[in-house]
Amino acid sequence: MHDQPAPDDVPDGHAPAAAAAEGADGRALPVVRLRPKANARAIRHGFPWIYADELVSDRRTKAMQAGALAVLEDAERAALGVVTVNPASRIVARMLDADPAAVIGRGWLAARLARALALRQTLFDAPFYRLVHAEADGLPGVVIDRFGDAAVIQPNAAWADRLLPDLAAALADVTGVTRIVMNGSGRARGLEGLDERTEVIAGEIAAPVEVPMNGAIYLADLTGGQKTGLFYDQRPNHAFAQRLARGGRVLDVFSHVGGFALAALAAGAAGASCVDGSAPALALAAGGARAMGMADRLETRQGDAFAAMEQLAAEGRRFDMVICDPPAFAPSKQALDAGLRAYERVARLAAPLVGPGGFLGLCSCSHAATLDLFRNASAHGIGRGGRRMQLIHTGFAGPDHPTLPQLAESGYLKALFFRLDG
Amino acid sequence: MHDQPAPDDVPDGHAPAAAAAEGADGRALPVVRLRPKANARAIRHGFPWIYADELVSDRRTKAMQAGALAVLEDAERAALGVVTVNPASRIVARMLDADPAAVIGRGWLAARLARALALRQTLFDAPFYRLVHAEADGLPGVVIDRFGDAAVIQPNAAWADRLLPDLAAALADVTGVTRIVMNGSGRARGLEGLDERTEVIAGEIAAPVEVPMNGAIYLADLTGGQKTGLFYDQRPNHAFAQRLARGGRVLDVFSHVGGFALAALAAGAAGASCVDGSAPALALAAGGARAMGMADRLETRQGDAFAAMEQLAAEGRRFDMVICDPPAFAPSKQALDAGLRAYERVARLAAPLVGPGGFLGLCSCSHAATLDLFRNASAHGIGRGGRRMQLIHTGFAGPDHPTLPQLAESGYLKALFFRLDG
Repeated sequence: MHDQPAPDDVPDGHAPAAAAAEGADGRALPVVRLRPKANARAIRHGFPWIYADELVSDRRTKAMQAGALAVLEDAERAALGVVTVNPASRIVARMLDADPAAVIGRGWLAARLARALALRQTLFDAPFYRLVHAEADGLPGVVIDRFGDAAVIQPNAAWADRLLPDLAAALADVTGVTRIVMNGSGRARGLEGLDERTEVIAGEIAAPVEVPMNGAIYLADLTGGQKTGLFYDQRPNHAFAQRLARGGRVLDVFSHVGGFALAALAAGAAGASCVDGSAPALALAAGGARAMGMADRLETRQGDAFAAMEQLAAEGRRFDMVICDPPAFAPSKQALDAGLRAYERVARLAAPLVGPGGFLGLCSCSHAATLDLFRNASAHGIGRGGRRMQLIHTGFAGPDHPTLPQLAESGYLKALFFRLDG
Repeated sequence: MHDQPAPDDVPDGHAPAAAAAEGADGRALPVVRLRPKANARAIRHGFPWIYADELVSDRRTKAMQAGALAVLEDAERAALGVVTVNPASRIVARMLDADPAAVIGRGWLAARLARALALRQTLFDAPFYRLVHAEADGLPGVVIDRFGDAAVIQPNAAWADRLLPDLAAALADVTGVTRIVMNGSGRARGLEGLDERTEVIAGEIAAPVEVPMNGAIYLADLTGGQKTGLFYDQRPNHAFAQRLARGGRVLDVFSHVGGFALAALAAGAAGASCVDGSAPALALAAGGARAMGMADRLETRQGDAFAAMEQLAAEGRRFDMVICDPPAFAPSKQALDAGLRAYERVARLAAPLVGPGGFLGLCSCSHAATLDLFRNASAHGIGRGGRRMQLIHTGFAGPDHPTLPQLAESGYLKALFFRLDG
């Protein structure tokens, strides 16, 4: 913060600059400018974020509303593109389009959605996938999951929240979905000054949606579930586990709606047990097994996962495959040490539940726990659980969750598959 | 090297200790001992290597032949297991069995092979895979690839070279293979004092073997090819590329025997072009395409890959998918900087050959180039090639190439799939 602060000048409502920032009506956008020290080269090469200390922080910029549009210029006043600005955020601006003349409206949104859709149509046979994965799909802060003729939008950035009607209309145009949920429960919304609310903004959502994936059928509760009701990101890891599950007994700890358990049943597992703290999630897992005609092969156990693993060990239960896919134990760098200890504990408690020569799948969706750290914690835990191991597979989120290579931290999901000693 | 050296005491031939180290005949093994500073705990938890400065280096130990067997004790004289010793190596001993009474002979080898086989039979429908991947399969320095009724053994450690007749016999017992090649071309053999030689030690190998994988047919030259004639490690990355290849034109640079190109054709690619420096490898690629009945869809171009990419760019050629799977440009830490520059150059030259919205797959099999370093080099190269990108998939070697999590460096193969801008 090298520039003079002007806190008293921040208006409460729409400042003139912010009002002009809509852009779509043809009015000129305001200009924000990089400091000489900013990494303009990285931005030119596709890095989408501008940090607060890289931007000239004058009175007009500070007065912008979160989500205002602006043209970004480098220190030499060459235009770099259209950005969305949030003066209150550490990431003070995010690149929307490298074309400074781009008009950010319904047509622009439709073009971005069409490009995202083309990738998913290449990747998948059926319209069930993450359609938009934020920055990497050119829509910063926007997540859209598709469930056949329904979609759930998470507008986790102020610019997208303000453009939500255009976004929803473009989404219907491009994909043909008729039912749209706006899910505003994301943690990121608070940083953007957005409220928490979830509502159906098109069509009707009366019941959980059936989602076919990897030969299994999942039930996704689009209006009441965690995040957007289903985690598409684990799709390739479910598929890998299927190969190991055939004919065996599978334990799915932190199962949510039965991601690994139902995939295992679809692949021919003899039986699967789900453990989760959420009774509604377990009810959806059971519903999925019913829809697959395999209700008799699924067992559910509601309760604390750590306690359940200790209890299963005390009962002498052994499984051919155990999968643990816990919530993010290390959501931030501050929580990293405690998170890694929790991952190690999961591994230590799970390892004794794996039969001789069986398989253990351990997952982390923590940004802060890098692959190396998570692998080390897992290996330590397995060793402390009294087992030797081979690591046979490392998986990440599926390809409908693309990342920008410049944002290494966006590779949040890790899945490690171990084979334990005989 | 804190102990007094005794170079004059090193005998030329079999020292008494080394002679006694055979073990399989029931004679007691010699003892080697850890220094107090050694990490005995890690070894107890499965770390398989003992570094030279961790072992008491007395006259008898120095006199051991490379590949001699011994019982490893910790500094308090508690036995940790049976190791193989190589006094000339930085890794002076490698753990064979945590049971100090283990008898390392044909029966022991058969048990290790059976355990390795069980994993592959779970993973694959047909007997074409890496059967043994060294340390992680409990056979340090030993690599065995299986091709139906044939197998190629790489005994890259002295202990296995000395036990080769037992190893081959156990391999035939456990798997039923009738044809066995001993491939002694590995770089590691020099460090073990072993000669370079490749010979058929059981049955006959008259012609290249047909290898079915991912729906394609490859030809593997088991006696004359690179390494063991085929790279099974890319199997899951081939499979991922197949999804992207359907209906499109594919360029496979550094193609070897056509790994990605033939997989793409099997998945329905309209056509594929192989570029490689090796005419024999390209002939095998063409032979594979013939065996698939798709010879008319494969084009081969022999020559320097860099020059070929520049030439293709000059011709204005564009492909729906380009894959570059070069040899290890950074085989050592010393070669890392030059290697990363080479990976960046590959990416820079390949990016312009990818059509709008097409895919670019970049691979590294360099131990020293970590995932982060390789991804950064690739992203820089793509950016310098004038393209924007999404990273849609990160893949590693297939699950028939297990690793010990304690040896992070064994995760050598990385494959990155990018989608480029439209």
